[in-house]
Amino acid sequence: MVHLPEKLLNGYRNFMAGRYASETSRYRTLADDGQTPETLMIACCDSRSAPETIFDAGPGELFVVRNVANLVPPYAPDGEYHATSSALEFAVQGLKVKNIVVMGHGRCGGIKSVLGPTHEPLSPGDFIGKWMSLLGPAAEAVSGNTMMTAGERQTALERISIRFSLANLRTFPCVDILEKKGRLNLYGAWFDISTGELWAMNPVTGDFERPRLD
Amino acid sequence: MVHLPEKLLNGYRNFMAGRYASETSRYRTLADDGQTPETLMIACCDSRSAPETIFDAGPGELFVVRNVANLVPPYAPDGEYHATSSALEFAVQGLKVKNIVVMGHGRCGGIKSVLGPTHEPLSPGDFIGKWMSLLGPAAEAVSGNTMMTAGERQTALERISIRFSLANLRTFPCVDILEKKGRLNLYGAWFDISTGELWAMNPVTGDFERPRLD
Amino acid sequence: MVHLPEKLLNGYRNFMAGRYASETSRYRTLADDGQTPETLMIACCDSRSAPETIFDAGPGELFVVRNVANLVPPYAPDGEYHATSSALEFAVQGLKVKNIVVMGHGRCGGIKSVLGPTHEPLSPGDFIGKWMSLLGPAAEAVSGNTMMTAGERQTALERISIRFSLANLRTFPCVDILEKKGRLNLYGAWFDISTGELWAMNPVTGDFERPRLD
Amino acid sequence: MVHLPEKLLNGYRNFMAGRYASETSRYRTLADDGQTPETLMIACCDSRSAPETIFDAGPGELFVVRNVANLVPPYAPDGEYHATSSALEFAVQGLKVKNIVVMGHGRCGGIKSVLGPTHEPLSPGDFIGKWMSLLGPAAEAVSGNTMMTAGERQTALERISIRFSLANLRTFPCVDILEKKGRLNLYGAWFDISTGELWAMNPVTGDFERPRLD
Repeated sequence: MVHLPEKLLNGYRNFMAGRYASETSRYRTLADDGQTPETLMIACCDSRSAPETIFDAGPGELFVVRNVANLVPPYAPDGEYHATSSALEFAVQGLKVKNIVVMGHGRCGGIKSVLGPTHEPLSPGDFIGKWMSLLGPAAEAVSGNTMMTAGERQTALERISIRFSLANLRTFPCVDILEKKGRLNLYGAWFDISTGELWAMNPVTGDFERPRLD
Repeated sequence: MVHLPEKLLNGYRNFMAGRYASETSRYRTLADDGQTPETLMIACCDSRSAPETIFDAGPGELFVVRNVANLVPPYAPDGEYHATSSALEFAVQGLKVKNIVVMGHGRCGGIKSVLGPTHEPLSPGDFIGKWMSLLGPAAEAVSGNTMMTAGERQTALERISIRFSLANLRTFPCVDILEKKGRLNLYGAWFDISTGELWAMNPVTGDFERPRLD
Repeated sequence: MVHLPEKLLNGYRNFMAGRYASETSRYRTLADDGQTPETLMIACCDSRSAPETIFDAGPGELFVVRNVANLVPPYAPDGEYHATSSALEFAVQGLKVKNIVVMGHGRCGGIKSVLGPTHEPLSPGDFIGKWMSLLGPAAEAVSGNTMMTAGERQTALERISIRFSLANLRTFPCVDILEKKGRLNLYGAWFDISTGELWAMNPVTGDFERPRLD
Repeated sequence: MVHLPEKLLNGYRNFMAGRYASETSRYRTLADDGQTPETLMIACCDSRSAPETIFDAGPGELFVVRNVANLVPPYAPDGEYHATSSALEFAVQGLKVKNIVVMGHGRCGGIKSVLGPTHEPLSPGDFIGKWMSLLGPAAEAVSGNTMMTAGERQTALERISIRFSLANLRTFPCVDILEKKGRLNLYGAWFDISTGELWAMNPVTGDFERPRLD
């Protein structure tokens, strides 16, 4: 009796014969000493933009939150369950990460869903509709511009959402304080699935630019 | 002027020269045709247990939610922002995934934090304390058992939490209905960082067992 | 007595010793037989985006109109002097070009001037203000979106203006007829001065995409 | 799917591998700092007389207006759209160029069209007919002189048109004032496509002379 999809088991076999075999001591050390990742990555669930793949990151390097459209809600200490804020708090206060990267990507389905036309909720709970409504005002400003193509509106909102999440990150007192002390750095990035291009946000202007790799 | 940590840029260079170079057409097709992942993976943010690494998964294969301790809260259509429920809805109703895997792992910091001794909140908002309180009753039952070692209590709660998340998944009507129709399969898995061992949950007994890989 | 700036005379010396010397017969043939360029290029006056340079074009290849912001006004047979419409008519009806390319570029000063803040006219005649007012409605739609950065608004309007000029080209009966007969092809392109990247417009979606050069 | 003529894409490849590769930092600086060309060149659209080629000019050196027969209409602040006057205003008042060069050339099709015999308009709008009528009185004087050969009449009108445009330039108050202050210099040039010869206008006599290149 097999208790996992065959494809995953095959992949796991490759992992054991490959990466784990060649990095056994690294895994053991990480298990014994605990993790000390330098970077918290806030990324999208999308199957095409895994941070470990795009940044060729090994075990122990990236502490990764993934939700639809890589959103950070604003600071709301209201006693509710907050998946993203919890991970943020754990990474910043518990693990003392040095960097937070919000990484968006092209052709994001979550972003597309708020640019209309209006859809029926995916289920009666309409969780995704509520979640993406965090971007409501920005989506409205973009979707009204019919002189931009659908693709341009999509890219524009993807990038706005990264700046939105970065701004929300700074509403968390711990992030704000540590950044001002120079002990925490915030970054924005956007990945183009088709071309593989990575665009990094210029922290001064907010523009996304191709980093010079040479 | 570099707008990303140097280490990430180096990793990205490797990605472009390696994986992207050898899978360019796959990325382009995934961009043009959209993603059709078969599996929703609910995993922990921990830097040592990236699903794509452990399952050697390529682009387009896994839709991945990552939060602290890979928890799924119970169905609560209350109009609040729900990161995890949104991703679940999107994967099941939007992308029509066939499998949902809840993957926990050893030495999970989130699990450890609820097994006491009681800590000061990491910040005044105490997001992580509230988040992990989802496991409150289970944690209480385990932490009172002083005949188990600290390590055993930790592993026990890690596995309980996977069954807890699977049970919560079934409180979502769409999951419940599709599973009963045989169109959605739920799985539990637990990864041992130190040994690299993967344990899969027996759906009948709830036990975690080593799958036979040969 | 020198009747041209020294720098231009030096450049001309290089031309005679270089390009002209190696292409003398080509120039002679072009003089004797007349020009038969295949492409009308409508480009900006900007000193950083010369079409012959960017497309490495030799003598006889490109018939080039250059005005501020590479604009084509709508068809207006009103008996006034129309520099751009005249060149268009000459190229299409006289020279029977096969292609028309509207090429914009990044950091265009003309585009920037309509995205405000409102400036004093450069001179009492305010020619540039009137000329750029061709883009008035589009500029208004873009400049109101303060969630986009100044750079993003600029790029958006640069690309909108290319689509605008292409649409205006099609208001000229001769262009419309020949395009429908398949004897004339219209293209849009956008050049990034900083990176040297050329983006070509997808004629179906209007999006600008990097052409695959491999 | 290719969205540009193949020939242009090939040329662009050469540009990237050649000029851009060897002048990358120059392009980047020009993008970051903006353009500061010293010279406004008013030239013809003709595919055989690209200013950048003839003057071996690099990026950032020439701000270039190109229309049929390199004409400057007289100053007419009438609130209409003026492509050429706009570019002139932008170059002189915005970019503060030091030089304006009107460059004509031999075998100019626009000039030829006004020397008769009378042609049918190229299209019902007859844009080119109206545009070239700027030279009407001059053309009439020349075309009536049957003692000059057709070739001599053509060259004569080409050179008259350069002086005509220079005179019109001086009807613009900003040009007139800056020239009188010694901050702006006006030049005329004429290029012989066949021989590659460049003739510069003597500002005192109006004659076109071969500059000494040694």
